[in-house]
Amino acid sequence: MEKENLDPWGTSSVKDYGRLQSEFGIEPVAPLLPRFKRPSPHLSRGIDFGQRDLSRILDAVDNNKPYAVMSGIKPTGDFHLGTKMTADDMVYFQSLSKKGTVFYAIADVEAYADNGLSFNETSKIATKNVADILALGLDPDRAVVYFQSEEMKVMRLATIFSRGVTNNMLRAIYGERQIGLYMAALIQAGDILMPQLKEFGGPRPVLVPVGADQDPHIRLTRDLAARYHEEYGFIVPSAVYHRLMLSLSGDQKMSKRSEDSLLTLDDSVSAASRKVLNAFTGGRDTEEEQRRLGARADICPVYDLYRFHFARDDAHVETVYHECTTGIRLCGECKQEAAGLVKSFLQEHHRKRDSMMKDAKELIDRSRDYLGSRGSQ
Amino acid sequence: MEKENLDPWGTSSVKDYGRLQSEFGIEPVAPLLPRFKRPSPHLSRGIDFGQRDLSRILDAVDNNKPYAVMSGIKPTGDFHLGTKMTADDMVYFQSLSKKGTVFYAIADVEAYADNGLSFNETSKIATKNVADILALGLDPDRAVVYFQSEEMKVMRLATIFSRGVTNNMLRAIYGERQIGLYMAALIQAGDILMPQLKEFGGPRPVLVPVGADQDPHIRLTRDLAARYHEEYGFIVPSAVYHRLMLSLSGDQKMSKRSEDSLLTLDDSVSAASRKVLNAFTGGRDTEEEQRRLGARADICPVYDLYRFHFARDDAHVETVYHECTTGIRLCGECKQEAAGLVKSFLQEHHRKRDSMMKDAKELIDRSRDYLGSRGSQ
Repeated sequence: MEKENLDPWGTSSVKDYGRLQSEFGIEPVAPLLPRFKRPSPHLSRGIDFGQRDLSRILDAVDNNKPYAVMSGIKPTGDFHLGTKMTADDMVYFQSLSKKGTVFYAIADVEAYADNGLSFNETSKIATKNVADILALGLDPDRAVVYFQSEEMKVMRLATIFSRGVTNNMLRAIYGERQIGLYMAALIQAGDILMPQLKEFGGPRPVLVPVGADQDPHIRLTRDLAARYHEEYGFIVPSAVYHRLMLSLSGDQKMSKRSEDSLLTLDDSVSAASRKVLNAFTGGRDTEEEQRRLGARADICPVYDLYRFHFARDDAHVETVYHECTTGIRLCGECKQEAAGLVKSFLQEHHRKRDSMMKDAKELIDRSRDYLGSRGSQ
Repeated sequence: MEKENLDPWGTSSVKDYGRLQSEFGIEPVAPLLPRFKRPSPHLSRGIDFGQRDLSRILDAVDNNKPYAVMSGIKPTGDFHLGTKMTADDMVYFQSLSKKGTVFYAIADVEAYADNGLSFNETSKIATKNVADILALGLDPDRAVVYFQSEEMKVMRLATIFSRGVTNNMLRAIYGERQIGLYMAALIQAGDILMPQLKEFGGPRPVLVPVGADQDPHIRLTRDLAARYHEEYGFIVPSAVYHRLMLSLSGDQKMSKRSEDSLLTLDDSVSAASRKVLNAFTGGRDTEEEQRRLGARADICPVYDLYRFHFARDDAHVETVYHECTTGIRLCGECKQEAAGLVKSFLQEHHRKRDSMMKDAKELIDRSRDYLGSRGSQ
């Protein structure tokens, strides 16, 4: 069977997570679970299902050694429930040890190149995005936030890597793409490997929490880390993969590209409620049928709201799943409950985030000074 | 007939300059010659044979409007007689008006990516390269020198352009290449268009003096300037093309890639003499034959030394050509004379350059301050 390429730029969800393990070599997370003292909801609920070299991060935690958690965002709009998942992972893996530092890349050059957003516009959006992460629990004292447009070290790495890859390598990983996307991929590799430059203390384990569809970037970067190991001492970066959340219409992953069925962290409580109540579900055609057969939680974005974000705890997820699939719970009441949870979350989140805009600006300024003082190679 | 691509990264010389005009649309320089008050030796000797929109620069000169002259170098070694040609053109076109500013890019990221030279090493080489240009007559008060590794504006443009080109466009211009070369081409387009950004005063005519084999970069950049005209107001850049000098072995263009047959501006007088005396020539097999048929100046790198660089004046070039092709002059004596001219030039150049190392450092520092004050967009 021919290998199908994952599309990190697409809107499709991933159908078969098992295939990712067998074909692309992503390892399961489960065997490592006993090493976590307090597994996150993503871990305990099987949302973080896969990993590469995650044990390297756990070793650093156990041995009180420094490690980094790296992620980024294209600042084109509000945080949504898809980006929140990566943020939750960042926050959690940062919290495992005082030696964990987050590097957060704001891809403003990409936002400009692809979406025509000026650096002024993206700067405002990014500040709000950073406030979102702080509200989700990021420790600003161990975080570095940078704008792609200001970080020459990343662009240098991308240029260097562009001489080290062949078109065939890129095609094997991404399929035939326009050069702009290949270049974006090389810049991302620069983002992921930058924390290991000597200016930042040299090689250390780096964890990248990503959606499963981003694995091509991880494979490329791991390959580059190995190729440039001799020169830079790069440790091959680790990754943890989360399942992709369904959009509210149930037909693709939740992303900025499917706005109608997107819940953002900036939605008003009323807009969010309306969206939840209008969502696609895994329900049956009639009540009678649903009572008899149960509904299909596995294709239901409302169930995803519970499981991925808003359930009070793991037992709550199990209850919802059980009641749904055995026909005890009908979709109307289930949506009502979900809408209530979303509402509580958003009210609290908006309050927290608004109070953290100043901290976000400070984190960005402090990071700018820190990166500036790291100067050029 | 299928179009053959020019290879800006190759070692071949250009065989048929007429073809460049008919196939690629390079215009002849000759019709514009009357507009030059004091044509340079490159112009009067037909070395600068082609141009695109050169009249736009002459208009700026005539109307006392600002224009820029843009070029660059990969700082991997000493200036040689090939790079000197571009430098001579830069100096000449800067001198046409007090409103002419030179932008000079030092491609240190490329030097690192391709040649493994550290930024420290390239910084030293670049300073010497800049001293070479100053010794050749560059006015430092109207020049900006920058290192690629420090100039985020160029990288931003390259990233933006990477989204605006298709692989097909790049293939049509360069043939099928590895992504690293495509990326280098987009960075060069960024270099050429940067002087027109609003930070530097906004759109103005820019002249790029290049060897004929670099035309693909010019075509790409002109295409991008037109594509991004609406957003940036770019004026499509102008170019002037010089013939490629033969290497001393006569079989390819003079470049760093054919070191044995390269004359550098750092060669000792004795090494340079030895190289000239050992050069390939267009001479005949026997003296008798040469006296009878004349020698072939058109394939002779020693004749190129006179014509491109070291003849006292145009009349001297004509004398050498006439004596050579009619058999009056034999190769031995011709080489001796050439070696003497090279020797005088190098002695004088070394003296000047050594006295200008401090000015070179100052120009680089002053440029760094100037560019830094232009900040980010």
